[in-house]
Parts: sequence; structure tokens; C-alpha cells
Amino acid sequence: MRIAILGTGMVGEALGSKLVALGYEVRMGSRTPDNAKAAAWVRQAGARASQGTFASAAEFAELLFNCTQGSVSLEVLKSVGEAALRGKVLVDVANPLDSSKGMPPVLYTAPDDSLGEQLQRAFPDLRVVKALNTMNCQVMVDPARVPGDHDVFVSGNDAEAKALVTKLLTEGFGWKHVIDLGDITTARGTEAFLPLWLRLWRSLGSGDFNIHVTKR
Amino acid sequence: MRIAILGTGMVGEALGSKLVALGYEVRMGSRTPDNAKAAAWVRQAGARASQGTFASAAEFAELLFNCTQGSVSLEVLKSVGEAALRGKVLVDVANPLDSSKGMPPVLYTAPDDSLGEQLQRAFPDLRVVKALNTMNCQVMVDPARVPGDHDVFVSGNDAEAKALVTKLLTEGFGWKHVIDLGDITTARGTEAFLPLWLRLWRSLGSGDFNIHVTKR
Repeated sequence: MRIAILGTGMVGEALGSKLVALGYEVRMGSRTPDNAKAAAWVRQAGARASQGTFASAAEFAELLFNCTQGSVSLEVLKSVGEAALRGKVLVDVANPLDSSKGMPPVLYTAPDDSLGEQLQRAFPDLRVVKALNTMNCQVMVDPARVPGDHDVFVSGNDAEAKALVTKLLTEGFGWKHVIDLGDITTARGTEAFLPLWLRLWRSLGSGDFNIHVTKR
Repeated sequence: MRIAILGTGMVGEALGSKLVALGYEVRMGSRTPDNAKAAAWVRQAGARASQGTFASAAEFAELLFNCTQGSVSLEVLKSVGEAALRGKVLVDVANPLDSSKGMPPVLYTAPDDSLGEQLQRAFPDLRVVKALNTMNCQVMVDPARVPGDHDVFVSGNDAEAKALVTKLLTEGFGWKHVIDLGDITTARGTEAFLPLWLRLWRSLGSGDFNIHVTKR
């Protein structure tokens, strides 16, 4: 399976490197074909890593990770175009956070909407799975970094796409607990967790944490 | 210590009964002095339980629990008046949820605000502690109902008030893990957890769950 990483930030680097280490061919996409951060990542990640425009990465891959900032994600997918996205699976890792008024950033989506839903609405033939947006990128790709039981959530309309992502999360990344919250509207729940995540990060003094749902 | 429960719903009943069982004198407040639900609760809860108006309950007590619906909490405190609230501790258990457009309800506060802050701003001499708003009322008063480690959060500007509430949570209710998130603005974090709580409730098919923060 060939995988695209959309975005050259810390999250894209961490996911791209992990996926290369797992044996996948990974192309990192950015606005320009010769982005310096993507080039540095390719040099470090090795032979299975490549770079290109967002469109080049999307065309190359069957599975895409949206690691762009939430505020530009829709624009990035529009630059790729519907044809290159049709039928593919997009793992939406981004959060709709606005830091323009200072820290901590705030959610900018309406309470009856989410970034995951916005992407799904704009590209009905893309199979959007919201996942991995509730922990920092080191924990995403190495859950054993945090001891004990803790969870990752998936939201999406397509059962086959969620099964594919769940398999990658468990067998690839080593997640022990994947909670399927339901359709893509449940992304409202995980995106709205970010305000609490940001306070926990400040209160605990570290992003190396996660939550576990424990039930009766 | 004398305690007021503002509100006659399930949350008020559960907290009131637990506090009476712990030996406190508890007055349940409502709009009218002879509210039928409060009367039924008093009969069931026993000699240390009484009822009255919101103002009567607030005047009676040193510690208050806001168990009213978030949408009316400010109005209820205004009906009590500043004098009866001055210097007292209010545990704000309510959430700013709007179910007028169907289920699940949505947060109605702005992303840079919270109900806890609204109450604190309106009554600067009241010591507001946001707590217990992230689990159902049976778990609130009986955390051992859910096995394993799980957490309750406190937010507030007054360290002494948070210490009082934390002691009641641990020694009274039996909570093992109380996480102090910081000042009252951190109530934005726990209130914003509700959209995820509501999806977990639906996905798990039960409200008998809670979360535990696990860290490296």
C-alpha cells in the first residue's frame, strides 16, 4: 500500500517516518514539489520516502493522512482535486484550532459541525476516517511510550475504511484499544476534546499522556 | 458544614442523598418552597434533609452545588442574590448544553468562554469550583461503581475552595484521582469534553464509564 502524508509539520514527519519503518512507500506532499522540510525528511527516512506536491502525493497513494493545519485542510484537498481523491481513504488527523487570538487555541467550528465532516461533505467520494487527533504525534506512532491502557478513537461513514485504519493502528502502530465512535459526525466529540487536552498538557507539563475509557 | 443543592433533577438528588449519608445537613433549593420533587427527596433522604427556595437553600449553606440546567444557572444565582453567595463555595456541576435542536445536545458557550466563568464573572465574591461535570451522577457520588483508575477534574481561582472540594471528593465520595487543571478558565476544557462524553455514552451503550489520564 502506498501512502501520502499531506503536510510537512511534526505530525507529518512522525507519521511518515513510522510508515516508512513499517515498510510502506510514503510520499510527503506540500505546496511546492521541492519543499525543504519534505526534502530533509526524505533524506532521513530513506529509500521508500519521496516528496511532491499535494496533488502528486495524493495521486501516488491509496491511503492519505491529512497532517495539514485544520484551517487550510479544505483548501489543500481542493488543490488536489476530486479525481485524485475518489474512493481513497483519508485519515484526518487535523484539528480545527485557531491560535490567532493567543494560547491556548480555540475550536473554530460550529458546535454542530467538525473538520472531519467538512472534508467529508466537500468530497463525498473520499472515505474520511477521523483518528489520531487526540494525542501528540509521538504517542500516535508509539503508544507504548505512555504506560498502561489508553485509547485511540475512530469516526467515519465507511466501515471498510475504518477497518483498514483500525488494522494499521493496531498491527502497525501497536494500539491496544481502538474505540469506534460511529459515523463522521462523531468527529465533533474527538475534536471538542482538544480544549481539555490543551489544559491537561499545561497542567501535567508534558504532552506524553493519553486517556483511557474505563467502564463498568 | 451545611450544604445547598440547587436543582431537583437526578444530579441534585444523587448528590443530596450522598451528602446526607455522609452526615451533612443538606437543603435542596428550587423555584418554589414546596416543590414536589424536593419534598419527595426530603422524605426519602431523612432528618438531615430539608427543602426551600433557591435563596433559602443558599442562605442556609456554606457550600453550594449548582445542579440546575446550565441554561438557567445564571438566572437561578441572580434570584438568590449576591449577599447570600458572598464568600461561599459553589461547586458548578452543570454544563452549557442546548438540546433544543435535538440529540445529542451541543455546547452553547463561545469557545473562549464557559459556564463556570460566566458564574464566576457574575458573582466575583462567590468561589466557583467547576467539578464533577464530566461523568454521570451515579459515578459522581460512587466512583468505585466504575472499576480501575479514573479521574475527576477541578477548576477554580480560589486554592482554599479547591482544597475543600478536593477533600470532599476524596474523603467523602471516594475519588482516588483529582486533577487540578488550574483557574476557572480551564472549565472550558471539561465542559468541551461533553461532546465526546455524549458519543462515548452512545457508543458504549451506558453512562457507567469515565476516563483516566495516563502519562509517561
